[in-house]
Amino acid sequence: MNVDGKHLRTIWLAEDGWSVVIIDQTRFPHVLETVTLKTAAEAAHAIREMLVRGAPLIGATAAYGMALAAHHAVDDTSLKRAYELLAATRPTAINLRWALDRMMARLLPLPEMTRMAIAYQEASEIAEEDVAINQAIGESGLALIESIAEAKPGQPVNILTHCNAGWLATVDWGTATAPIYKAFDKGIPVHVWVDETRPRNQGASLTAWELGKHGVPHTVIADNVGGHLMQHGMVDLCIVGTDRTTARGDVCNKIGTYLKALAAHDNGVPFYVALPSPTIDFTLKDGVAEIPIEQRNARELTHMTGRTEDGRIETVEIVAPCSPAANYGFDVTPARLVTGLITERGVIAANSEAIAAAFPERVAS
Amino acid sequence: MNVDGKHLRTIWLAEDGWSVVIIDQTRFPHVLETVTLKTAAEAAHAIREMLVRGAPLIGATAAYGMALAAHHAVDDTSLKRAYELLAATRPTAINLRWALDRMMARLLPLPEMTRMAIAYQEASEIAEEDVAINQAIGESGLALIESIAEAKPGQPVNILTHCNAGWLATVDWGTATAPIYKAFDKGIPVHVWVDETRPRNQGASLTAWELGKHGVPHTVIADNVGGHLMQHGMVDLCIVGTDRTTARGDVCNKIGTYLKALAAHDNGVPFYVALPSPTIDFTLKDGVAEIPIEQRNARELTHMTGRTEDGRIETVEIVAPCSPAANYGFDVTPARLVTGLITERGVIAANSEAIAAAFPERVAS
Repeated sequence: MNVDGKHLRTIWLAEDGWSVVIIDQTRFPHVLETVTLKTAAEAAHAIREMLVRGAPLIGATAAYGMALAAHHAVDDTSLKRAYELLAATRPTAINLRWALDRMMARLLPLPEMTRMAIAYQEASEIAEEDVAINQAIGESGLALIESIAEAKPGQPVNILTHCNAGWLATVDWGTATAPIYKAFDKGIPVHVWVDETRPRNQGASLTAWELGKHGVPHTVIADNVGGHLMQHGMVDLCIVGTDRTTARGDVCNKIGTYLKALAAHDNGVPFYVALPSPTIDFTLKDGVAEIPIEQRNARELTHMTGRTEDGRIETVEIVAPCSPAANYGFDVTPARLVTGLITERGVIAANSEAIAAAFPERVAS
Repeated sequence: MNVDGKHLRTIWLAEDGWSVVIIDQTRFPHVLETVTLKTAAEAAHAIREMLVRGAPLIGATAAYGMALAAHHAVDDTSLKRAYELLAATRPTAINLRWALDRMMARLLPLPEMTRMAIAYQEASEIAEEDVAINQAIGESGLALIESIAEAKPGQPVNILTHCNAGWLATVDWGTATAPIYKAFDKGIPVHVWVDETRPRNQGASLTAWELGKHGVPHTVIADNVGGHLMQHGMVDLCIVGTDRTTARGDVCNKIGTYLKALAAHDNGVPFYVALPSPTIDFTLKDGVAEIPIEQRNARELTHMTGRTEDGRIETVEIVAPCSPAANYGFDVTPARLVTGLITERGVIAANSEAIAAAFPERVAS
């Protein structure tokens, strides 16, 4: 999407034609800086340390990580080593393994001399497919926003989102934000309530940044606020992303999503999940019971990085120093709380039948 | 309660016998510092700027603020001016006006020469009554914890709390924490999940601090985490405080409480509100519709103060700098989500009949 009027993506090939450029998202919202990746290990580091994050972008970065591996060595052992390295970076996001498996399935049957070129081609295709999927999600979700806008002419449609399922989490457009950008670009008045999203503050530092840079009206709120807003009719719909969705529509997403879904349900506010189909895991049904939840370093909660008034970037400790802290990265929202899934094939119900009907080729596989 | 083995309260008379000492709670968790108040204006400042916070402690501080006013001038006009000054500091906490009204009702009928001494006596009584109420709340809630402990021998009782309804929010013992301290002091194994409580982080900086200093096992979590813990059986009960409760049991408390109540309800986890009876507002019924919700400075959300690794206290900006932010201070949890009210007269149901039956003299007034 646009950054001060200039179009930007989250990952692209460098001018040398083989190394890969990403935006270092750990520096947001105060610094916009790119990092050039030259090895699979650097790509793995970028995923593990969350220089890139968001399921689709993790998938694209992992695919380009395999291309970088192939740039240096194309034998089976080297590719498998790169695969293992990249697969071990983040346990929850299903796109990671999906992209890596696809790269391996494409490359291993090939003669070694063609593997490098095909690796770059395949990684590029994964990236372009993500853009196409998100555009389609945007069109699917646009209709929802349009119908709400028609019911309250002249007033903005208030949309609550959690974490960052924006273009910064994908290659472009985003998932949860794609309908918002489509609506905004079409001139429909929208206003986004942006959950801060503790402990890593992806809402306050990423979603707020990208909405602001594109010009979309928005307000940052603490994660605690959404329920109050919904009680008072100040939210027309919720749209969130997902890292992994089960075959019956249970949604694993950033920790706290479940609480917003409960509030939406309690107040009759539609709760939608924007969902690129690669994030559906057809091997799982009961998300709460079956999806492993990543526990991350407690320091993400106990320390906070930001900019001082005189422009220095400082990290400060904000929790009582002798107190232990726990940091669960995701939670699972049961399908019963999800109004619908906004997919690249339209808006569908969050249940096994509707999901299977929309993606029959995935069920069979 | 204890701080490193030494007993401390949140407010007390200075050695000069007339000025009032408080703990500056804006300096937590890194600095324990007291401030001496010498005028009603200083007391008002302490309440408004949240050097003291928590409904009961606000009430006690306001009462002592009236005593400080009486120390300087005891005529009706001066007392009324002090009353207005103190009443305007915080719009939501009912204890504030309750304590001020009580002071005025006591003082205005008196001859001027006795007003100062009686003002100090009345403020002291308000403080002592708070301690007695909290002790009684502690005994009421202790039984709940004991019965859970009996059902899981040898394992800790996991209690989730939100914000700080600890001794730092009262004169001593706290409301939500009183049952926890009683259980801990009795040797019952307890573990407290402490919600960080954005945007002011009262959980991470106050509750974690006071539990740690008293020796109670606890873990700080982001506000987003409670739902996940409850889905996985990791919370045995929730106990929160309240700033204002309606006659039918709707509970106004720190923003985000409603979301935890929804999660508790969805997972069959008991959700209790510890409630000193002065926080019941018998003039209100429908909390969501009738209780005004304080909106505070957005800077509380956009900036964060903490300690750097080399010991400096720094304030850093953590939200994308061009993004607006909103800061709603409280929300309302409907009575239907409240398992029970832990009062100084026992645990009662959250409905009009039970509340009226427990506090008949308040209904009549």
